Amino acid sequence: MDDYKEILRALQIELVKLQRHFIACEHRILVIVEGRDAAGKDGVIKRLVQHLSPRETRVVALGKPSARDEATWYFQRYVPYLPASGEFVIFNRSWYNRAGVERVMGFCSEEEYQRFFLMVAPFEQMLIDSGIQLRKYFLDIDKSEQQQRFLAREQDPLANWKISPIDREAQVNWANYSHARNEMLRRSHNDIAPWVIIRANNKKAARINLIKSLLSSLDYEGKDEALLKADSKIIQRYKPEMRDTGFLAD
Amino acid sequence: MDDYKEILRALQIELVKLQRHFIACEHRILVIVEGRDAAGKDGVIKRLVQHLSPRETRVVALGKPSARDEATWYFQRYVPYLPASGEFVIFNRSWYNRAGVERVMGFCSEEEYQRFFLMVAPFEQMLIDSGIQLRKYFLDIDKSEQQQRFLAREQDPLANWKISPIDREAQVNWANYSHARNEMLRRSHNDIAPWVIIRANNKKAARINLIKSLLSSLDYEGKDEALLKADSKIIQRYKPEMRDTGFLAD
Amino acid sequence: MDDYKEILRALQIELVKLQRHFIACEHRILVIVEGRDAAGKDGVIKRLVQHLSPRETRVVALGKPSARDEATWYFQRYVPYLPASGEFVIFNRSWYNRAGVERVMGFCSEEEYQRFFLMVAPFEQMLIDSGIQLRKYFLDIDKSEQQQRFLAREQDPLANWKISPIDREAQVNWANYSHARNEMLRRSHNDIAPWVIIRANNKKAARINLIKSLLSSLDYEGKDEALLKADSKIIQRYKPEMRDTGFLAD
Amino acid sequence: MDDYKEILRALQIELVKLQRHFIACEHRILVIVEGRDAAGKDGVIKRLVQHLSPRETRVVALGKPSARDEATWYFQRYVPYLPASGEFVIFNRSWYNRAGVERVMGFCSEEEYQRFFLMVAPFEQMLIDSGIQLRKYFLDIDKSEQQQRFLAREQDPLANWKISPIDREAQVNWANYSHARNEMLRRSHNDIAPWVIIRANNKKAARINLIKSLLSSLDYEGKDEALLKADSKIIQRYKPEMRDTGFLAD
Ligand SMILES: Nc1ncnc2c1ncn2[C@@H]1O[C@H](COP(=O)(O)OP(=O)(O)O)[C@@H](O)[C@H]1O
Ligand SMILES: Nc1ncnc2c1ncn2[C@@H]1O[C@H](COP(=O)(O)OP(=O)(O)O)[C@@H](O)[C@H]1O
Ligand SMILES: Nc1ncnc2c1ncn2[C@@H]1O[C@H](COP(=O)(O)OP(=O)(O)O)[C@@H](O)[C@H]1O
Ligand SMILES: Nc1ncnc2c1ncn2[C@@H]1O[C@H](COP(=O)(O)O)[C@@H](O)[C@H]1O
Repeated sequence: MDDYKEILRALQIELVKLQRHFIACEHRILVIVEGRDAAGKDGVIKRLVQHLSPRETRVVALGKPSARDEATWYFQRYVPYLPASGEFVIFNRSWYNRAGVERVMGFCSEEEYQRFFLMVAPFEQMLIDSGIQLRKYFLDIDKSEQQQRFLAREQDPLANWKISPIDREAQVNWANYSHARNEMLRRSHNDIAPWVIIRANNKKAARINLIKSLLSSLDYEGKDEALLKADSKIIQRYKPEMRDTGFLAD
Repeated sequence: MDDYKEILRALQIELVKLQRHFIACEHRILVIVEGRDAAGKDGVIKRLVQHLSPRETRVVALGKPSARDEATWYFQRYVPYLPASGEFVIFNRSWYNRAGVERVMGFCSEEEYQRFFLMVAPFEQMLIDSGIQLRKYFLDIDKSEQQQRFLAREQDPLANWKISPIDREAQVNWANYSHARNEMLRRSHNDIAPWVIIRANNKKAARINLIKSLLSSLDYEGKDEALLKADSKIIQRYKPEMRDTGFLAD
Repeated sequence: MDDYKEILRALQIELVKLQRHFIACEHRILVIVEGRDAAGKDGVIKRLVQHLSPRETRVVALGKPSARDEATWYFQRYVPYLPASGEFVIFNRSWYNRAGVERVMGFCSEEEYQRFFLMVAPFEQMLIDSGIQLRKYFLDIDKSEQQQRFLAREQDPLANWKISPIDREAQVNWANYSHARNEMLRRSHNDIAPWVIIRANNKKAARINLIKSLLSSLDYEGKDEALLKADSKIIQRYKPEMRDTGFLAD
Repeated sequence: MDDYKEILRALQIELVKLQRHFIACEHRILVIVEGRDAAGKDGVIKRLVQHLSPRETRVVALGKPSARDEATWYFQRYVPYLPASGEFVIFNRSWYNRAGVERVMGFCSEEEYQRFFLMVAPFEQMLIDSGIQLRKYFLDIDKSEQQQRFLAREQDPLANWKISPIDREAQVNWANYSHARNEMLRRSHNDIAPWVIIRANNKKAARINLIKSLLSSLDYEGKDEALLKADSKIIQRYKPEMRDTGFLAD
């Protein structure tokens, strides 16, 4: 635990260096964090941004689409939040909602779902061509771990109001979410915008390794490589075999 | 002249029908109007929207990009103005500025210019795939016609303030603009998002024929086809030969 | 008629001078145009802005308040549209909706209505103290004139779609609107933000006189005073007696 | 220390109750947190919002005014962030910048400064009349405490980038800031929108007492009064005598 705190602190110092470098070079970074309910998205994002400059850092967690959003190009509502020069933007959930919660909960039609997969690769390609460094992380937990986290939340007066109706159905819909996740990874992983998967049953290990992976994938001045060796039992680039090896939860 | 007014009125009634149909069907339309300074963009747009419902109609004429705009994805500042369901949006100038005024005046780098041509086709494809009906019109006038219009403006106390520094150089840069136009048409015309060229020396003919062309290219209830025969001496889909036949001004 | 065109043109040249002066001095102007349905608000505003610089001119016609608007400070949704330095802003309808259509149609509560009158004077005072030049015009027509205009609209295929359900009840609610207007004028007229009333049965006279009044109330370079004598049978500063003298329609 | 954690946790449970009540009743709350650099504004705000619902909670820390902001009504840029029904908004610094940093650093003119004091009371009155519950807190630290905090920041690699040029002059300008604070409190404290002062040399005591004061000043269901006794050595409503009693630092 002290170990965790020390490592986290060292990594956060690296993040500060990274940001300083990116601001100076006017680079732009977009990190997408996906994962089921209670997978730990909020927690890792909190550690990522904790010591960064608020002016150049933005965490984007859009609510459900408005009526007007639904009347426009699916990606449109995300576009104003894309990073400008020097900005570090994190999407807590993203356009991949269409392939996850919208698919499972029936919030989009079959046709919209299929169209999403046709459009997501060219869309991301375009952002990357425009100079955005895109990183896509998927936090994966087991069914029993999710259940335990929900139970803990329910008992915590500081957290129980956070449980949404959608959360309540997450366990029931477990298999559907697994299937949707598999489809999403299969159809939106590619060399230009690859997915990185994180075993997230252990929160601390997940946070540490996501940050290591992010840092080691980007160039910046004063990088301390020795700190950045990620644990391949926790984090790996997506591979189709993952479903069989158990790296992805059933 | 009375003839013009009558025809225009009849076409505007068609536009009202078109809009009513599009609102009911939740269709979306985006019309791009391009052309040199003084080509008559404002005039034709005024007639297009004159009797349409303001709530569902939007004319977008963005000023020069802000510092923040320049720090983002080139297309980003246009995205919030794209049509939602039922909306009729007209861009008075557009992302094609990069291939025209920005190229000629040196407002963008060679690399940005080249990148624009790589990205514009996939970008437009994406909008079309998302259900937007895109129409691209280029108003083309002769060098002497432009000069005359500038002179008329200068003498008109209600118009002379409109003359911008960029306008003042339009005649001097005539050949550069012709060249930029040729490149733009050659590299951004395709079957999915074709350019339509309008000989615009005669303002009234240009207006009438653009509206006819737009109406006949779209489906709507109660369409009066007899009204919509455009004059091929005035308006034609872009063809590479146009430069040689004189349909495009030198 | 030719007379009208000539005078209008001369006044529009004055408006261009006014704007040029205001842009140079970084002054700010806000014109509120109120009046019943079909009183001619759109028409006069069109002539006001016809030859002004679009970049520094803004016509604001807000739709009905959104759910979020209704959850905020009543004036909040208008604030982003207030003029910045050098800007000329015209509100086509305004916060006075609360004292007019919202009152008559029952879109606000009695309490909200009363609160509006408590707040409108300090709010306008604040804007004026901050350097905004505020002008408030009320276009007043007779009941029969309104009816005729509605009939004309219904027969015009280019205008009939504009007739809203609220318009349709305007004749039935005539007396209620008269009463609401009287209350509004009585309770929101003061020396700092006075109302100016325009007899608007004659559209051309209304337009000419509103523009004259506006111009003569503001200082600008090169002002041609001779042009600006308004007709006191058409336009007058609000006075309580107006209801009795028939200057305000019953 | 464990004590602190326990009390804080208990108070945060109260904050959750408060928010639930406010959401249900559609109440609106605006908390202004002011104080010199390093007074601990960020820290207390972090504890306030830690467990609140992000959708209904907003922390607003505006950067320096843009050129456009400076061309508008001084309060204008704050208005879009005011709370809607059910929202809990915290301003980390606020319009009082004009009376503090802008005054001391010379970012506004004498006339703007004086005008601010004329306008701030009616402006706040208006917000309160519109149903916003406004609370204004001023965190006050000693000169030596500020210096120590700056030194600690400089030595911390996770914090040193946060030190702005304005911070660097805070010690030099100490007396000017004290004077500006005194003027601000004297001229903007009133019964409708009173200031509450917090001795903030001890961070934990400051946080605990601010939260207690806020909670006890608002009505909500299930309030645990026993928890909310604030310490009058730490927190008091502003009184002119405070400057002499040493409650406000010299
Ligand atoms: N520095 C610049 N960088 C990019 N585009 C610019 C720049 N300055 C002007 N433009 C664009 O050039 C176009 C022509 O400008 P101008 O002749 O002033 O306006 P208009 O023809 O629309 O009245 C406009 O679309 C404007 O946005
Ligand atoms: N439910 C509502 N609540 C408040 N205002 C409304 C409501 N419905 C319409 N209005 C307002 O009433 C005014 C008149 O409506 P309408 O006649 O439809 O529009 P217009 O006269 O602007 O064409 C508009 O300013 C509109 O915003
Ligand atoms: N030129 C300026 N004009 C007005 N306000 C300014 C200006 N520069 C900075 N400020 C304001 O001064 C305050 C203090 O600035 P700074 O110490 O840099 O930020 P912070 O204390 O919020 O980290 C901020 O609210 C900022 O908006
Ligand atoms: N009706 C809906 N349509 C689309 N997305 C939704 C809808 N309702 C909720 N969501 C999304 O589902 C995700 C999980 O919701 P929640 O658990 O309520 O935070 C969020 O990203 C929501 O934006």
